[in-house]
Amino acid sequence: MKKVGLIMGSDSDLPIVNKATAILKELGIPFEAHIYSAHRTPEQVDAFTSSAYDNGFGAIICFAGMAAHLAGAVAARTVLPVIGVPCKSSNLDGLDALLSTVQMPSGIPVATVAIDGGANAALLAAQIIATSDSDLYAKLKAKRLSDAQKVLNKDADLLAKL
Amino acid sequence: MKKVGLIMGSDSDLPIVNKATAILKELGIPFEAHIYSAHRTPEQVDAFTSSAYDNGFGAIICFAGMAAHLAGAVAARTVLPVIGVPCKSSNLDGLDALLSTVQMPSGIPVATVAIDGGANAALLAAQIIATSDSDLYAKLKAKRLSDAQKVLNKDADLLAKL
Amino acid sequence: MKKVGLIMGSDSDLPIVNKATAILKELGIPFEAHIYSAHRTPEQVDAFTSSAYDNGFGAIICFAGMAAHLAGAVAARTVLPVIGVPCKSSNLDGLDALLSTVQMPSGIPVATVAIDGGANAALLAAQIIATSDSDLYAKLKAKRLSDAQKVLNKDADLLAKL
Amino acid sequence: MKKVGLIMGSDSDLPIVNKATAILKELGIPFEAHIYSAHRTPEQVDAFTSSAYDNGFGAIICFAGMAAHLAGAVAARTVLPVIGVPCKSSNLDGLDALLSTVQMPSGIPVATVAIDGGANAALLAAQIIATSDSDLYAKLKAKRLSDAQKVLNKDADLLAKL
Amino acid sequence: MKKVGLIMGSDSDLPIVNKATAILKELGIPFEAHIYSAHRTPEQVDAFTSSAYDNGFGAIICFAGMAAHLAGAVAARTVLPVIGVPCKSSNLDGLDALLSTVQMPSGIPVATVAIDGGANAALLAAQIIATSDSDLYAKLKAKRLSDAQKVLNKDADLLAKL
Amino acid sequence: MKKVGLIMGSDSDLPIVNKATAILKELGIPFEAHIYSAHRTPEQVDAFTSSAYDNGFGAIICFAGMAAHLAGAVAARTVLPVIGVPCKSSNLDGLDALLSTVQMPSGIPVATVAIDGGANAALLAAQIIATSDSDLYAKLKAKRLSDAQKVLNKDADLLAKL
Amino acid sequence: MKKVGLIMGSDSDLPIVNKATAILKELGIPFEAHIYSAHRTPEQVDAFTSSAYDNGFGAIICFAGMAAHLAGAVAARTVLPVIGVPCKSSNLDGLDALLSTVQMPSGIPVATVAIDGGANAALLAAQIIATSDSDLYAKLKAKRLSDAQKVLNKDADLLAKL
Amino acid sequence: MKKVGLIMGSDSDLPIVNKATAILKELGIPFEAHIYSAHRTPEQVDAFTSSAYDNGFGAIICFAGMAAHLAGAVAARTVLPVIGVPCKSSNLDGLDALLSTVQMPSGIPVATVAIDGGANAALLAAQIIATSDSDLYAKLKAKRLSDAQKVLNKDADLLAKL
Repeated sequence: MKKVGLIMGSDSDLPIVNKATAILKELGIPFEAHIYSAHRTPEQVDAFTSSAYDNGFGAIICFAGMAAHLAGAVAARTVLPVIGVPCKSSNLDGLDALLSTVQMPSGIPVATVAIDGGANAALLAAQIIATSDSDLYAKLKAKRLSDAQKVLNKDADLLAKL
Repeated sequence: MKKVGLIMGSDSDLPIVNKATAILKELGIPFEAHIYSAHRTPEQVDAFTSSAYDNGFGAIICFAGMAAHLAGAVAARTVLPVIGVPCKSSNLDGLDALLSTVQMPSGIPVATVAIDGGANAALLAAQIIATSDSDLYAKLKAKRLSDAQKVLNKDADLLAKL
Repeated sequence: MKKVGLIMGSDSDLPIVNKATAILKELGIPFEAHIYSAHRTPEQVDAFTSSAYDNGFGAIICFAGMAAHLAGAVAARTVLPVIGVPCKSSNLDGLDALLSTVQMPSGIPVATVAIDGGANAALLAAQIIATSDSDLYAKLKAKRLSDAQKVLNKDADLLAKL
Repeated sequence: MKKVGLIMGSDSDLPIVNKATAILKELGIPFEAHIYSAHRTPEQVDAFTSSAYDNGFGAIICFAGMAAHLAGAVAARTVLPVIGVPCKSSNLDGLDALLSTVQMPSGIPVATVAIDGGANAALLAAQIIATSDSDLYAKLKAKRLSDAQKVLNKDADLLAKL
Repeated sequence: MKKVGLIMGSDSDLPIVNKATAILKELGIPFEAHIYSAHRTPEQVDAFTSSAYDNGFGAIICFAGMAAHLAGAVAARTVLPVIGVPCKSSNLDGLDALLSTVQMPSGIPVATVAIDGGANAALLAAQIIATSDSDLYAKLKAKRLSDAQKVLNKDADLLAKL
Repeated sequence: MKKVGLIMGSDSDLPIVNKATAILKELGIPFEAHIYSAHRTPEQVDAFTSSAYDNGFGAIICFAGMAAHLAGAVAARTVLPVIGVPCKSSNLDGLDALLSTVQMPSGIPVATVAIDGGANAALLAAQIIATSDSDLYAKLKAKRLSDAQKVLNKDADLLAKL
Repeated sequence: MKKVGLIMGSDSDLPIVNKATAILKELGIPFEAHIYSAHRTPEQVDAFTSSAYDNGFGAIICFAGMAAHLAGAVAARTVLPVIGVPCKSSNLDGLDALLSTVQMPSGIPVATVAIDGGANAALLAAQIIATSDSDLYAKLKAKRLSDAQKVLNKDADLLAKL
Repeated sequence: MKKVGLIMGSDSDLPIVNKATAILKELGIPFEAHIYSAHRTPEQVDAFTSSAYDNGFGAIICFAGMAAHLAGAVAARTVLPVIGVPCKSSNLDGLDALLSTVQMPSGIPVATVAIDGGANAALLAAQIIATSDSDLYAKLKAKRLSDAQKVLNKDADLLAKL
C-alpha cells in the first residue's frame, strides 16, 4: 500500500499530528512522520518531498501554524497530493495559518482541511489512497457507518439529559 | 481512467468551473458536470453522489458561494475524495464560502482550495487520480515544468519593463 | 399546540440546547430533541425534516458549530420556519458557524440568532407559534414585562455597588 | 391573512426591500412598507411597532445598514417575530450590519437572514404566516418545487456551455 | 458642574463601568448611573435620555456588548454628546459591540472609545465638560502630567528588570 | 464661540473633510483646517495642538487612513476633546484606520466616529461646543427635527415606489 | 554600494514593484529584479538567495499575493534582511498576503510593510543600507524634509479648497 | 558596534521585550531599553529618537499594543530602520496592533514582525547591523545552522513519540 508522509513544522504541532496518526493506524495505512520546518530546515523538506513518489508515498500531510508555508513548500516540489492542516498558535485563532495554507496560487494546489483538523487530513489521505485500493475503500465505508452509529447511540441516550 | 465529477451550486459559478474544465481537458481527464444545489435540489445531489463511485468517478469537485454547504453535503454521502471550491459572491469577498467549506467537522473531510480556485481544484483531482495512473503523473510533472518555464520566460522579459 | 423540533449536530452543543429547552419548558411549549448530524447522519436529518410538518411541528431549531450546515440542510427539506443557532467551537469564536448559518442563498431562508443564542432561538420559535396562539402571545408579553422588571430591580440595587 | 410589515432605515435600502416585496406579491401576502429610522425617527418606529399586532401584522421585516439597530429596536417593542436584513453600505461589506443585527442579547430575538437577503426575509415571513395558513403553506411548497425545477432546467442546459 | 450620566445595558458591564466611575470620582465630577437596556427597558432609556439636558447632564456614557444598540438609542433621543463603550462579551472579542457602536449613520454621532475602554470614556466626558470649566481643564492637564510621570518612573526602574 | 480645528493626514481625505465643513458652516461654527501628517510633519501637528486651547479651539477633528495615528498623536498633546475619523484607503475597507483610531490606550481618549464619518464628526464637535452654548444647542435640536422630517417625507413618498 | 534584490512572485505584481524601483532610482541605489515564484520556480529562488550576500546584495525585497510564501522562502535561505510586501489580489483585500508574510515563526524574520507598500519597502531597504553609508543617510534625511515640504505646500493651498 | 534601541509603550510588554533582549545578549549586540509611550510621554519618544543616530544606534525596535502608534511615531522622527512589534492586549488578539503598526503611509516605513514577535525583531535588528559587520553576519549564519540542528534533533527523537 502507498504510504502517507506527515511533516510537521514544529513539535508543538504533535497533538494535532497524533489525531492523524491515530486514524492511519486504525485504518492500517503505513506512514512516516518528520519534524521539518519550511523555514528552519528547508533542505530536509526539499529532500523528503522530491523523493517521496519514488519512496512509495501516495500523499503528504503538512502541519504548520502562523505563516504556514510548509504545505505550499512541499506542494511546490511534488505533484503528489499535498494536504495542509492549518494549526492554531498563540494568536489569531489559526486564521493566519488557514489563509497561508489555502490561498495557494494557481498551479500548486494544497488540499486544505479545517484548523487543527488532523483527523480529517488523515481521512482525506486515506480516501485518496482508496481510489485505487478497494479494501481500504471498504474500510472507509465501514468506518463512516460506525461513526454514524455513534451519533445515533448518542441520540438514543439524549432523552435522559434534557 | 476515473472520471472527475463537477457540481456547481448555481450557474453563476460557471466562470470558476470553466477554469477547472480547461485543466481537465488539457490533461485528457474525462469529467461530467452538473448544476445541483445542496439547498434547492438536495435529492439530485444525493443521487449523483451516492452512485458516483460505482459510476466510475475518482473525485468530485464542488463549487459554491455564500453558506457553501455543497461540498460538505456531497462529502457526507461518499468516501470518494471531495474537493471544495469556495466561490466569491456579492459580499464578504468569499470568506463566508471559505469557512463554510473548510471548517468541516471531524469525520467528513473536504479538500478545500483557494477562493475561486477552480484551476487548482482540477489539478488536485488530477493529482489524486494520478496516484494510480503513471501516465497522468508524468503529464502533471511535465505541466509543472512547463509552468515554471513560463515564469522563467517572463523573468527574461523583465529587464525591458523596469 | 404545535411542537418545536430541536436538532443538534453534536452532543457538545447540549449546553446551548439546554438554554433553549429551559425557555420552552417555562412557556409550556412541547418539543422533541435529537442529535442528528448533517454530515454524519444525513438520512436521519432528512427523515425527521420531511415529516416534521405532518408530525405537528411548527418550527425547527438547529444547533451546529464550525461549517454549520445543519440548519441549511433542514431548511432545504421543509418550508417550516427553521431557526439556526451558530455554536462556538474551539477556534474562530463562532464566526465560521455564524457565516455558514446565516449566509443562505436566495430561496432557502434560515432565521439565524446570535452565536450560542439558544434562549433567543426558543423565544423566536415561541413567537412564531404565538402568531396563531393568543394564549402563548400573552405569555410572551408577560415574560417580556417580567424580564424588564428584573433589569429595573437590578437598577434599583445599583447604588450600593458604585 | 396576517400582513407583513416592512421597515427600512433609509431609502437607500429600497433595492433590497424590492426583492422582498416581489416575493410577497408573488405569494399574495398583504404588506405595508415604511421608511422609519431607529435613530432619526425613533418615535415612528415605536408607534408602528407597538400597534403592529393589533393592526393585523404577523411579522415585521427590518432593513438597515451600518450599525443596524432597526430590527433590534423593533424587536424590543413587540413579541411578534421580527426579521432583520443586514444591508451592505459603502464600507465593511455588510459585516457591521450583520453583527449589529444578529448578535442580539438574550430575551429579544431577531431572525436574521443573509446580508442583502431581502428575498429570504420575505420567504421567512411567509413561512411564519403559513404555520397557521395551509393555503400559503401549499403555495410555499409549490414554489420550492418550481425553484428546484429551474435549477434542473439549467442543469439540462449546461452541456452546451462546457 | 454638569453631571455625567452612565447607562449600562447589563450589570455584567459593571467592571467596565467601575473604571469610568473611578476616574469621575478622582476628578470630582458628579455622576448618576443606571442599568437600562435598549432592548429590555427601552422606555427607561427614552425617559432618562429625553430629560437628561434639563436634568443637568453634560454627557452620557453608554456601556453595552454584543449588538450594542444602547449608545445609538440614547444618541437618537438627545443632542448631548453621547459616548459609547463597546463591551466584550463571550464571543467575537468585542468586535460586534465595536461595530454596532461606532458605525452610526449620518446625523446621529456616538463618540466611541476602545473595547472595554471605561476609563477613557470618563476622561472624554471630563474633557467635554472641561471645555467650559477651566478648573476641570487644569485638573485634566495635571492628571496627564502625573500619568506621564508614572511612565517615567517605570522607565527609571527598568534597568533592574532586563 | 469656540472654534473647531480640523486636521487631515493627507489631501486625499478632503472629500470626507468636506462633509464635516459643510455641517460646521450650516451651524455657523468657526473652524480652521490643515493638512498635517502625524508621520510626515509631526512638528506641525505638535505645534498646532499644543497651542489649540489657547488659540480658542473647543475640539479638534482628525482625519486619517491606514495606520491612522493622527488623532492619537493629537490627543497625546492636548486635553481638548479629540474626534477621530477613520478614512477608508485602497485596502481593508477602513478597518485598519478604525482600529488604529479607536483602540487608544487608557489615559488618552479619542472620540471615534464611523469610517468616513465626516458629517458625524462635525455634529459631535458641535454637540461638545453646545454643552456651553444654548443657542447652538437649540440649532442642533432644530436640525435633528428637520432631519427627521426629511425621513418622514420620504416615507410619505414611498407608496409610489413599491 | 550594496545592491537591493527585488523578487516578485508574479508579473501581476509589477505595478507595486515599480513603486519600489522608482524610489531606488531616485536614491541612486543599484538593484536587480526578478520574477521568481516560491511555488513555481523554487530552485531559482533558492539559487538567487543563497548567493545574494556574496553577490553584493544588502537587502532583498519580496513581492507576493495570496498565500504569500515568497519572503519567507527567501528569508529561510539567507541572513540578509528580507523585506516582504504583501500584494492585494482578487479577494480578501490583501489580508491573506499580509498574514502569510508577517506571521513568521521565531528564528526567520521578515520585515513586513503595508499591503501594496512598494515605496516603503524600497525606503526601508535604503535605510538599512544607509546604516553604513552616510551619504545615503543624508539623502534619506533630505528626502524626508522634501516630503514634509510637499505636505506643507498642500496645507498652504488648502484654503482655496474649503 | 551599533547599538539597538528598544522602546516599549508599557511595561506590560516586558515579556515580549525580554524575548528580544535574550537574542541581543546571545549575539553580543549592545542595546538600551526604555519605557516611553507615544501617547503618555511623547516628548521622551521624540528626544530619544531624534538623537538616536548620533548616539550610535543602528536600529530601533518598538513594542506596543492596541492602537500601536509607537513604531510609527518613532519612524516619523528618524531615518534609521525602525522595527515594530505588535503586542497582543486583552482583546482582538493583536490584530489592532498589527494593522496599526504595519499599515504605514508611503514615506515612513516600519519593518513589522509577527504579533508578539520579540525574538524575530531582535534577529532583524541584528541582520541590519550585520550588513556592515561580517563578524555578526557569521554569528547569524552559525545561529541559523544551530537552530536547524535543533529541529533535526527533534525529528530524530520523534519516533518515540508516535
